Amino acid sequence: MGQQAHGQPAIGLDIGGTKIAAGLVDAHGTILQRAHARTPGTSPALVEQAVLDLVERLRHHAPGAPVGVGAAGWMNPETGTVLFSPHLAWRNEPLRDRLSALLGGTVRVANDADAAGWAEYRFGAGQGEPNLVCLTLGTGIGGSLVSEGRLRRGRYGLAGEFGHQIIVPDGHLCACGNRGCWEQYASGNAVGRDARELARANSPTAQTLLDAAGGDAGAVTGALVTELAAAGDPASREIVGTAGRWLGIGLANLAAALDPGTFVIGGGLGAASALLLDEAEAAYRRHLPGRGYRPFARVRRAGLGADAGLIGAADLARLDAAHRTG
Amino acid sequence: MGQQAHGQPAIGLDIGGTKIAAGLVDAHGTILQRAHARTPGTSPALVEQAVLDLVERLRHHAPGAPVGVGAAGWMNPETGTVLFSPHLAWRNEPLRDRLSALLGGTVRVANDADAAGWAEYRFGAGQGEPNLVCLTLGTGIGGSLVSEGRLRRGRYGLAGEFGHQIIVPDGHLCACGNRGCWEQYASGNAVGRDARELARANSPTAQTLLDAAGGDAGAVTGALVTELAAAGDPASREIVGTAGRWLGIGLANLAAALDPGTFVIGGGLGAASALLLDEAEAAYRRHLPGRGYRPFARVRRAGLGADAGLIGAADLARLDAAHRTG
Repeated sequence: MGQQAHGQPAIGLDIGGTKIAAGLVDAHGTILQRAHARTPGTSPALVEQAVLDLVERLRHHAPGAPVGVGAAGWMNPETGTVLFSPHLAWRNEPLRDRLSALLGGTVRVANDADAAGWAEYRFGAGQGEPNLVCLTLGTGIGGSLVSEGRLRRGRYGLAGEFGHQIIVPDGHLCACGNRGCWEQYASGNAVGRDARELARANSPTAQTLLDAAGGDAGAVTGALVTELAAAGDPASREIVGTAGRWLGIGLANLAAALDPGTFVIGGGLGAASALLLDEAEAAYRRHLPGRGYRPFARVRRAGLGADAGLIGAADLARLDAAHRTG
Repeated sequence: MGQQAHGQPAIGLDIGGTKIAAGLVDAHGTILQRAHARTPGTSPALVEQAVLDLVERLRHHAPGAPVGVGAAGWMNPETGTVLFSPHLAWRNEPLRDRLSALLGGTVRVANDADAAGWAEYRFGAGQGEPNLVCLTLGTGIGGSLVSEGRLRRGRYGLAGEFGHQIIVPDGHLCACGNRGCWEQYASGNAVGRDARELARANSPTAQTLLDAAGGDAGAVTGALVTELAAAGDPASREIVGTAGRWLGIGLANLAAALDPGTFVIGGGLGAASALLLDEAEAAYRRHLPGRGYRPFARVRRAGLGADAGLIGAADLARLDAAHRTG
């Protein structure tokens, strides 16, 4: 690789449903400059214009810097095409080519969970662990897989959708159309759903939850439950603990299949709840096939918080650019 | 790689619970010479002596040929140590070093499912597919993962234990100590267990099964059920079909996580039952997350039959030797 390209900063963007976070990131994963914008609706053209504006602002500090874009959805890494994005109206969108034409220079497109996992591998809680599974617990479960030091995306770029492993036959309905997906049991949404159900049933155990939500069971959120669990509310602790145990069973399944050295758990729920991670690790250890004959993977909290996606997208773009000029 | 080393034949052994199959295998995966022996009990020293005898016989035809040994169990590929083997009394056995000392030359130790999967990738139904999941359906479900053209073993060499993904909470007890493992629902053992249950209950639907087993419900095996299903017996077809549907749900889970381009299904049950594979593929297609937005992986029957293990072990040893001398 060219030394200059290798060390140059790159721009990373994390396109969410409501916000686009952007940053100029150096080769050590440090964010040198930040910028952000509201996601301007779901039109591809408007989103691309917003990306262009953010990149131009950051390129003042680093002319020609490579650009990495992370977004929820399915990317074909070979073609840079977005097959499908849940929050944005992208269907078979040739995002990389369109952004390349607008921006010039190297453009890398990545799934947001992949970008976040790569950042944790390079600069965060997964540093030094070439066999890593990274999970982002939010409304669902995002996932990424690093094996032997490289991001693995499978045949069509769609690997890492761990949240859609079916673990409960005929279980809760998932947005993907299946029933019983892991993310219906171990995500922030799962925690919120269980708590609302308890509150709606007027369970006496849910009084603290109901009070905290102003008496409106429908206003109970996963974040609120996590907060109350941390404060000691027994019902909230039970709900979070249950989600943690489901999380641990899924970790054991992933360990059986992939045998990572470390699991890194991030996202809103992962970051918020020590209880969840403790319960998950205990359940993982109870369910790991071959326990007693093999080492346990480490279970670690993510290190980069909400910045992981943009840091990882920038780093992937920087490595792409270095590879091309090297 | 050295041309000579690259093209030289290698010896592969597949150590089973009752039999050791061995062969001299050329660089195209063709078996040039065969040898076999009974597995002499579970003592490591006796097994090693049997391996030595077989290798000496085959090395008459190819002096100094590298040796690959596949066996059920958990191998650390870096150290060549067997952590645990279900059929043999190996616990933290430094198998590669011991065999190297006995045999001389290159010795490679591999998990049997990995060896079989590698053979299917190199010479069988997975040829040309660098992102491959291979399953061996027998008493359990053996698995291996090829990603970007390399066998992936995870951090401690224990990846690919797909059969122990928990898909039914509190389901059937598995030999691994967990409940609800996939292999309790989609293996030859699962088919036999369900059929015996039906026969023991004196279900009128099980009359053909009972007759074929001489009236002894305990004598009904998975192989018998598969045979009767192929001959059209409705109860046997239902049991095999159910196993096929569980197989397909597990394939969808693996596709969500790994996104392979092809699944190769082998082993006694996989080879025997077209019905099972048809039901599995249909269930896989019904359960694949994102169906409609992404291509389906191919589901293919294994191409190398019972020889896959020894062919793969030989090929891995040959590549190891080529790498060392290259």
